[in-house]
Amino acid sequence: MNLLPTQIIRLKRDGKVLPAPVLRQWIQEYGKGHIPDYQMSAFLMAVCLRGFSSEELHASVEAMIESGVTLHWPKHPRFLVDKHSTGGIGDKTSLILGPIVAAAGLSVPMMSGRGLGHTGGTLDKLESIPGFQTRLELPSFQEQVEKLNIAFIGQTEEICPADRKLYSLRDVTGTVESMNLISGSIMSKKIAEGIQGLVLDVKFGTGAFFKTLEESAELARQLMAIGHQFGKKVVALVTDMNQPLGRFAGNALEVHECIDILTGQVHRNSHQEDSYADTRELSIQLAAQMMNLSGRWGNLAAAEQEARHVLNSGQAYNKFVEICRAQGGDLTRLPRPRHSRIVPVTVDGFITGFDLEAIGYLNVQLGAGRVQLTDVIDPTAGIEFHHKLGHAVRRGEPLMTLYAADEKRLHQVAEKVGACVSYGQQAPPKFSLIRKVMS
Amino acid sequence: MNLLPTQIIRLKRDGKVLPAPVLRQWIQEYGKGHIPDYQMSAFLMAVCLRGFSSEELHASVEAMIESGVTLHWPKHPRFLVDKHSTGGIGDKTSLILGPIVAAAGLSVPMMSGRGLGHTGGTLDKLESIPGFQTRLELPSFQEQVEKLNIAFIGQTEEICPADRKLYSLRDVTGTVESMNLISGSIMSKKIAEGIQGLVLDVKFGTGAFFKTLEESAELARQLMAIGHQFGKKVVALVTDMNQPLGRFAGNALEVHECIDILTGQVHRNSHQEDSYADTRELSIQLAAQMMNLSGRWGNLAAAEQEARHVLNSGQAYNKFVEICRAQGGDLTRLPRPRHSRIVPVTVDGFITGFDLEAIGYLNVQLGAGRVQLTDVIDPTAGIEFHHKLGHAVRRGEPLMTLYAADEKRLHQVAEKVGACVSYGQQAPPKFSLIRKVMS
Repeated sequence: MNLLPTQIIRLKRDGKVLPAPVLRQWIQEYGKGHIPDYQMSAFLMAVCLRGFSSEELHASVEAMIESGVTLHWPKHPRFLVDKHSTGGIGDKTSLILGPIVAAAGLSVPMMSGRGLGHTGGTLDKLESIPGFQTRLELPSFQEQVEKLNIAFIGQTEEICPADRKLYSLRDVTGTVESMNLISGSIMSKKIAEGIQGLVLDVKFGTGAFFKTLEESAELARQLMAIGHQFGKKVVALVTDMNQPLGRFAGNALEVHECIDILTGQVHRNSHQEDSYADTRELSIQLAAQMMNLSGRWGNLAAAEQEARHVLNSGQAYNKFVEICRAQGGDLTRLPRPRHSRIVPVTVDGFITGFDLEAIGYLNVQLGAGRVQLTDVIDPTAGIEFHHKLGHAVRRGEPLMTLYAADEKRLHQVAEKVGACVSYGQQAPPKFSLIRKVMS
Repeated sequence: MNLLPTQIIRLKRDGKVLPAPVLRQWIQEYGKGHIPDYQMSAFLMAVCLRGFSSEELHASVEAMIESGVTLHWPKHPRFLVDKHSTGGIGDKTSLILGPIVAAAGLSVPMMSGRGLGHTGGTLDKLESIPGFQTRLELPSFQEQVEKLNIAFIGQTEEICPADRKLYSLRDVTGTVESMNLISGSIMSKKIAEGIQGLVLDVKFGTGAFFKTLEESAELARQLMAIGHQFGKKVVALVTDMNQPLGRFAGNALEVHECIDILTGQVHRNSHQEDSYADTRELSIQLAAQMMNLSGRWGNLAAAEQEARHVLNSGQAYNKFVEICRAQGGDLTRLPRPRHSRIVPVTVDGFITGFDLEAIGYLNVQLGAGRVQLTDVIDPTAGIEFHHKLGHAVRRGEPLMTLYAADEKRLHQVAEKVGACVSYGQQAPPKFSLIRKVMS
């Protein structure tokens, strides 16, 4: 079983299936720094093109988990559940569904990420609340989950270090876009949280990593299969990311939207629609799925009813305030942007498309995300969307409002962002936001 | 045209064709140390699995040539021609055909390699002659070719340094076995020699890099296509490497065989066959092809007649002695092995197969090659083959004789090497050594 690195690479290159112990050792040795990057990157490229079998995928996830710490919750009577989203524009559901599920009595040890590429990240959103601390030590994290049912932290050094090392290498070697590597990376971290249930929000469309429903459904299948291999209860929702979720994209702006939803505010757009409706509904549906995995409410409908009750009664908001207090965040000082600029509709007609990936990168340019890891985020930067797909619009009315602390960036982005929206003389067909529920 | 490294890697990963200027710059920058190994190895793996278009192959060869020096022969009236073999067991034709072609009046600037894996290398064979110097500076090399029509050297630092750097990386990243990368590496060095004609001996079989005739013919086609793109005259012979070429494999042993052939000795085996016949004939055919490329003899038959004449008249031997003298080699001190051991036939029947790759690696273990670059070769180590495919043999008669300076290694190898030969109750079908001539 002792294979040389070049033998391992060549087997994968030739499309062979590696024995599980070989693959596990290979990844563990890399995590320990015993395999040079140039060998691992050749291997990763072979995986991109040849794929993993489901046994290999399982072994690779096992190795990444074993490279670090797995959380244990020995005296935990409550069902432990988390959610993972593959990321999009305006995707802020964690801040709503986390408090709902925790207030309903389950435990939510939420380990989240930062903005990546054109998409935002939960940690960056929370850190727009002055003082909010996401770097908890694992014991404090577990203590808060015991006490409040929920805590939000970032991925720590202790959890899946081999995955983090592999991810950094993939990022610079053109080997990010492999469904096997993506699903292994996502699931290893979630499984290491020691949860029992996981709800996946797998997005597709112009703002998602995978553009088509089919690809995203395949990713969902892989993620679920890994979860099942590790004995987890998993449900996946495949959701539409061809238009922004909710009204705002940008860190503090999204927190404002979440607070409005948690406190029952309704914000209507020029079509007199509730412009928070999609954020609110998706959050409730995801929360209901999380709750239903516990079995406590009997069925999904009952779980959904309870989720709505917890939200509407203000219990979820109270939980959110508790979390902020426990993690040092001062909601009264949540910043508002200094500058804004309206981008107008340029054509009479219907809105037929958003190039959300381009819009996401322009939002990064406004200051809402990072180009390099060392970049500092402008928490107030972001975009307000006044319209949804299919809206009838007239030239000159507001399409978006851009926000930022830096006026120069505002002007630069204002010149480009209008071109990311397309118009037509007919309304496009309507699709539901949740396209598929897989369990 | 300025693409990021990850964009270049991803394009190749997705099977796209890179524009020639992009690929040239990519390889040149790597040669200069501006691209890290981990990015290049991911790229090389993508090339292994996606391949190059013929334009890409051309651009990559151009970049490797441009990374170093190209030889020029401004005052050279003679046709410049070389031969390249893809390597095998007992393949010693360079030491015979080089002197033949040079004695016939053409110029042969032979840049050769060392033993690689299970196969031998011309440089190691020559260096078994005490004092033989293969590290000439390029000006001395060119001077000797001007004067004697021939010189033997190793690849120098100045020729295709990017190829050498890429080869070292491929060696440790499982990316050696790509036909595009192999053919680019071979041809860049040959083209940089400034030759006009090239004869390729592309081997297939158990002792060759590619095991099947089809794969080797495809490699021959690619090598020839590159040669033609650079305006070279090229002929390829696809030859059988399912049994050792000639009687000996091992450095000094092979030089002894070459001297015997150059001086007209005949060494018969127990079947009363001339056991040098295949080495002699292949050398003459390759020499005739090299000579025919010059056009000087009108046609191949006339060139072959001249090659035989030059060999039989002793002119080729005289040329070989001249070369040895010029490069410091003392033929009178060519070493003979201290120890030997006979490996017997184990079954009554016919010889039906040689696992030449395994035999080659056992020969390395005897001391005839290197496991690591720093290993010191035993010039006297090697194997004498008493039988060819199809010979009727009886249990107990000699199958091979092993030679080495180290008796312990002799015993270790003797225990294993017999199992590399297979027997049957019927003689296998006979095939000609030269299976295909492509021009």
